[in-house]
Amino acid sequence: MIKKVLIANRGEIAARIIRSAKQLGIKTVAVFSEVDENSPFVQMADESYLLGPARVNESYLNIDKIIEIAKEYRADAIHPGYGFLSENHLFAEKCEKEGIIFVGPNSQVLKQMGSKIEARKIMKEAGVPVVPGSIEALDTIDEAKAFAKEIGYPVMLKASLGGGGIGMQVVQSDEELENVFLDNQQRAKQFFGDGSMFIEKKIDDARHIEVQILADQHGNVMHLFERECSIQRRNQKVIEEAPSSFISEATREKMGEAAIRAAKAVDYTNVGTVEFLVDSEENFYFIEMNARIQVEHPITEEVTGVDLVKEQLLIASGNPLSLNKNDIKIKGHAIETRIYAEDPERFFPSPGQITRLDLPEGEHIRHELGVSSSFQVTPFYDPMIAKLIVSGASREEAIERMKDALNNYHIDGIKTNIPMLKTIIEHDQFKKGNTKISFVDEYYLPMLKK
Amino acid sequence: MIKKVLIANRGEIAARIIRSAKQLGIKTVAVFSEVDENSPFVQMADESYLLGPARVNESYLNIDKIIEIAKEYRADAIHPGYGFLSENHLFAEKCEKEGIIFVGPNSQVLKQMGSKIEARKIMKEAGVPVVPGSIEALDTIDEAKAFAKEIGYPVMLKASLGGGGIGMQVVQSDEELENVFLDNQQRAKQFFGDGSMFIEKKIDDARHIEVQILADQHGNVMHLFERECSIQRRNQKVIEEAPSSFISEATREKMGEAAIRAAKAVDYTNVGTVEFLVDSEENFYFIEMNARIQVEHPITEEVTGVDLVKEQLLIASGNPLSLNKNDIKIKGHAIETRIYAEDPERFFPSPGQITRLDLPEGEHIRHELGVSSSFQVTPFYDPMIAKLIVSGASREEAIERMKDALNNYHIDGIKTNIPMLKTIIEHDQFKKGNTKISFVDEYYLPMLKK
Repeated sequence: MIKKVLIANRGEIAARIIRSAKQLGIKTVAVFSEVDENSPFVQMADESYLLGPARVNESYLNIDKIIEIAKEYRADAIHPGYGFLSENHLFAEKCEKEGIIFVGPNSQVLKQMGSKIEARKIMKEAGVPVVPGSIEALDTIDEAKAFAKEIGYPVMLKASLGGGGIGMQVVQSDEELENVFLDNQQRAKQFFGDGSMFIEKKIDDARHIEVQILADQHGNVMHLFERECSIQRRNQKVIEEAPSSFISEATREKMGEAAIRAAKAVDYTNVGTVEFLVDSEENFYFIEMNARIQVEHPITEEVTGVDLVKEQLLIASGNPLSLNKNDIKIKGHAIETRIYAEDPERFFPSPGQITRLDLPEGEHIRHELGVSSSFQVTPFYDPMIAKLIVSGASREEAIERMKDALNNYHIDGIKTNIPMLKTIIEHDQFKKGNTKISFVDEYYLPMLKK
Repeated sequence: MIKKVLIANRGEIAARIIRSAKQLGIKTVAVFSEVDENSPFVQMADESYLLGPARVNESYLNIDKIIEIAKEYRADAIHPGYGFLSENHLFAEKCEKEGIIFVGPNSQVLKQMGSKIEARKIMKEAGVPVVPGSIEALDTIDEAKAFAKEIGYPVMLKASLGGGGIGMQVVQSDEELENVFLDNQQRAKQFFGDGSMFIEKKIDDARHIEVQILADQHGNVMHLFERECSIQRRNQKVIEEAPSSFISEATREKMGEAAIRAAKAVDYTNVGTVEFLVDSEENFYFIEMNARIQVEHPITEEVTGVDLVKEQLLIASGNPLSLNKNDIKIKGHAIETRIYAEDPERFFPSPGQITRLDLPEGEHIRHELGVSSSFQVTPFYDPMIAKLIVSGASREEAIERMKDALNNYHIDGIKTNIPMLKTIIEHDQFKKGNTKISFVDEYYLPMLKK
């Protein structure tokens, strides 16, 4: 069993990991940048050490320094959280070499899953449906045009190493493809060190539905049903819910099985998420595998009763999965809204000094909090400062509670996206479950112009 | 169905009632005293009206004013919360006369249960075990001595209309009884307007275990298992848990049945609590019936999944109970700690301006909050400002989480009893489940003297 874990992350997810580690009797080591000294997670950990200045390369991405602290203070494991180093195969490899448990899959899996082209290839071979498109990297405009012709416009032009919407573009015609292909290839080379591009069919009316999986080091893989995360702004999730109100029980089962096949195809270990696009006829297509704990993991915890971070730490410690799938049923409905320190109309970050923080509390409300009532939100990191999770016996009940909770969420000193969240939660199309990825473009943005 | 409910209370319970009312689509009216204007519950309600000055007789006990506001703003129901007017039969009667639904039992039941002597008599007749002692009011010292002799010293001398420990005294001998009887009788007459006294056997090593019941207006009564509330300071509960770790499944069942008999004996309607003393051999004795929602109701909600305030409003609206007892099982373990604005060593109130409020958050944590980060705690009301409720799969897990949550509970500007709560939660005897009513006297107070 892991004895002491260093959390190579910050904010709400660092606090989340510390709580579950404590429940398992694991000692916790926080590392923090100069501007995060007063963060709640720094206070919560058993030990806390300064990484360096605010800039990520000198702090949360500073592999050498993080490993050095882990060794000096005898942490036998490192939990990378999400973002930052969580899917960095070089970091995982370094941990492996130093004899430190990396709380995640092995570096080989991370490398495979990091390349979207490679991942598509593996999944296709494993019988997991992928979005129709190119399987090998496209080197030239002509190759790209040939594939676009085959599947039909509009298509998505994507960089193999892209992520979070970066290196991704909708292309409508041969002419547009000619104009943008080389540019995108060049940019991918610069950003990600690899210019491999591929093309996928653009799925109409698509929803983003993902399956939570758990896989131990003894070959056991299970899934914990799905989350629907279609409400996004600029390819970043904003509102997530579990279960999806759209898919049928039969599709739920098929997607779960496909996710397990996906995990088995790469000998996956760790908790993880298999992301799919789902069209209006419930056809689903693999898009990527997230080899880490996901931001939106709490909604799965709320409807299944499983502590995913605890399971993750148990898996990393070498324990076999102790959950019995037959005992786990989806109970009720949970919704998460992400609170961003940003202008709700332009999606620009809005750092600043928090001057008031009074949260809605009570039954069925859960907060994942990265800030305190006196916190200074800096411009150095992701602007997501908190997550609000509510549950209910039904989707309707959860929506009503979320509405009420957002109305009682008081945070002053910075701008947040709460007005946007309220608008969406109270929108008729959201209530109807009409939650396609196009939701924000189709319904929210036009409302701002009025 | 109730359309608009006036909440004749303040603080955390007012906020709690507003949330469940909203879930049912019931409009909410808050009433508040001058010093409560900035309370969270005042902001949360659909409408809020000033009652008057801080003093309770001019505000939260001001029956005429409360009824007047209810009529003026067309509230068809009044929810009294706990304390204040919640068990005042004259208030309930006034509501009945004015055609306003009193969210509680009818005034006749309140009158019967308000008199402890009467309640004992009814329960004994209904076959509910009562603490051995006098059944009729004791008028003279000689009558009292005769009863004390019959049951043996030590005995509890109690006022029929007493409550919350007021008008209650342990008596060890004939001599002591002679010294205190008339004094207590006189004081009861002054305080409660009725000098009726009675004597009960003092139960050794007693625990306080109470059963939650629900009773509709159609004769259906059910129970939702028990709460153990033995950790008390000066007869005020401090820590409660559900289920009790002490009683056997057989006792649990017998107590549940006895509680249902108790409710049926008085044609009870509303949610309610039947309180028992339980001795070391699991014999249980009725002590009183609380004809209202209880402070510690959230722990029952956490382990059963039932929203008690919602059920209470449904019952008051005339709906038959819709819960199926067979579907409700105790799931896991929940603990509540009451946060008092008081000196943790002397139990003196500590009013003042809150200057910081950063609460522990996350999975399995629930707050019932009567204050905000800028709230001025005044000396006019009960010093309980918040409740912290945590749950776990087991009692051990819940205790660990409570410990962690208390360690991350930051409230500045006033003194609170958090140090006391931490000490008890981490005490070996508490962990062992050795939670007798004598706990604070036996284990906590002696630690202070060191």
